[in-house]
Amino acid sequence: MPRIVNHDQRRREICDVLLTIVAETGINSATIRNVAERSGWSTGVIVHYFRDRKDLLHGGLRRAAELLSEHNSRVLATLDGLQALEQLLEGSIPLDSRRLALSRIFFFFFVEAMTDIELRKEVTEYLVSWRKSVGLALKRAQELGEVSPDINRREIAKDLTGLVDGMGLHALLDDAVLTRLQEQSPVRFWLRRLVAQPGAARIQLTGPAETTGATVP
Amino acid sequence: MPRIVNHDQRRREICDVLLTIVAETGINSATIRNVAERSGWSTGVIVHYFRDRKDLLHGGLRRAAELLSEHNSRVLATLDGLQALEQLLEGSIPLDSRRLALSRIFFFFFVEAMTDIELRKEVTEYLVSWRKSVGLALKRAQELGEVSPDINRREIAKDLTGLVDGMGLHALLDDAVLTRLQEQSPVRFWLRRLVAQPGAARIQLTGPAETTGATVP
Repeated sequence: MPRIVNHDQRRREICDVLLTIVAETGINSATIRNVAERSGWSTGVIVHYFRDRKDLLHGGLRRAAELLSEHNSRVLATLDGLQALEQLLEGSIPLDSRRLALSRIFFFFFVEAMTDIELRKEVTEYLVSWRKSVGLALKRAQELGEVSPDINRREIAKDLTGLVDGMGLHALLDDAVLTRLQEQSPVRFWLRRLVAQPGAARIQLTGPAETTGATVP
Repeated sequence: MPRIVNHDQRRREICDVLLTIVAETGINSATIRNVAERSGWSTGVIVHYFRDRKDLLHGGLRRAAELLSEHNSRVLATLDGLQALEQLLEGSIPLDSRRLALSRIFFFFFVEAMTDIELRKEVTEYLVSWRKSVGLALKRAQELGEVSPDINRREIAKDLTGLVDGMGLHALLDDAVLTRLQEQSPVRFWLRRLVAQPGAARIQLTGPAETTGATVP
């Protein structure tokens, strides 16, 4: 009797192996052969799910988007206002191997998407969904009086996600930027600036990164 | 008698044609054949200067870096403090065809550089040079009393260049972000936030984008 295989589950497992390889050694090592070796499945099994390397990488992108989306849902279900906002933004900064893999695969496809309309639609949906979560947290922060009601949260969500992706991109190239992200939290620094608007309620963001960027080197 | 050719000049002209093509139709169209057609030189002339398409694109990257560096020097020579800062940052936002070409070629090579150490050194140098200019303008802004002396300008330069590149990257994928950049100036909005630090001298950034982001949509 044939073994019952949960295909969605196996597909996810293959993509998770791919993301592990991307985190460890980068996109170039993310090949069907390496995923097969690492996972213990044959290359035949891998190509049953992904017809070629490009399709496999695309599977990795979708898995990355799924993981980020799950993270964001968890954040919105458990935290509120500025605290949620901070976690929604920090979730995409490449500070551990999980987030490193997500960043590498996203930036790879961002550039691919510049010359591929279908792919562009897909990555734009991911960006819009991330901004929606950020906008929701900003709305709650306004309702809680943490952020001024004058703030245009849809526009600010664009800026904050841009800040995070730009610093993530630079961090993958320049260790000085990675150190900035590791030692301090630019997200927290700029959220404090957002909160410090004249006329807005002021709240204290707590935690070790509170004085971020405000000290002379 | 052979005609005297200024090789540096011709190399630059070829790269400028390449950047025009990148602005108009993207990296995929930036081929030796298309540059030859567009410039009127033969493919033989082009390959005399650039051995293959990759080398030609690399020439385009170096020319883009040179153009940005010239722009930054001009800004620092003619403007001061926050005004200079704003122009150093806005210079990399893809709002016209020149800056669109620079953005496309930079992001293309940023991703290439993630798997190529030599290239990574080169693009990191460009990032460091840009941040140095931004840091200089911040220093002047501090000397002029526009920005608090407590600001760690080296770290803030990382954040501001990250913000600009992240929003530029998103704008190349998502028209909603491009519109944000066209209609308002996130750079100005966040510089105002930097200036509005409690205890810092407050100055007014003038111009039409002054209320950026502070209005409800």
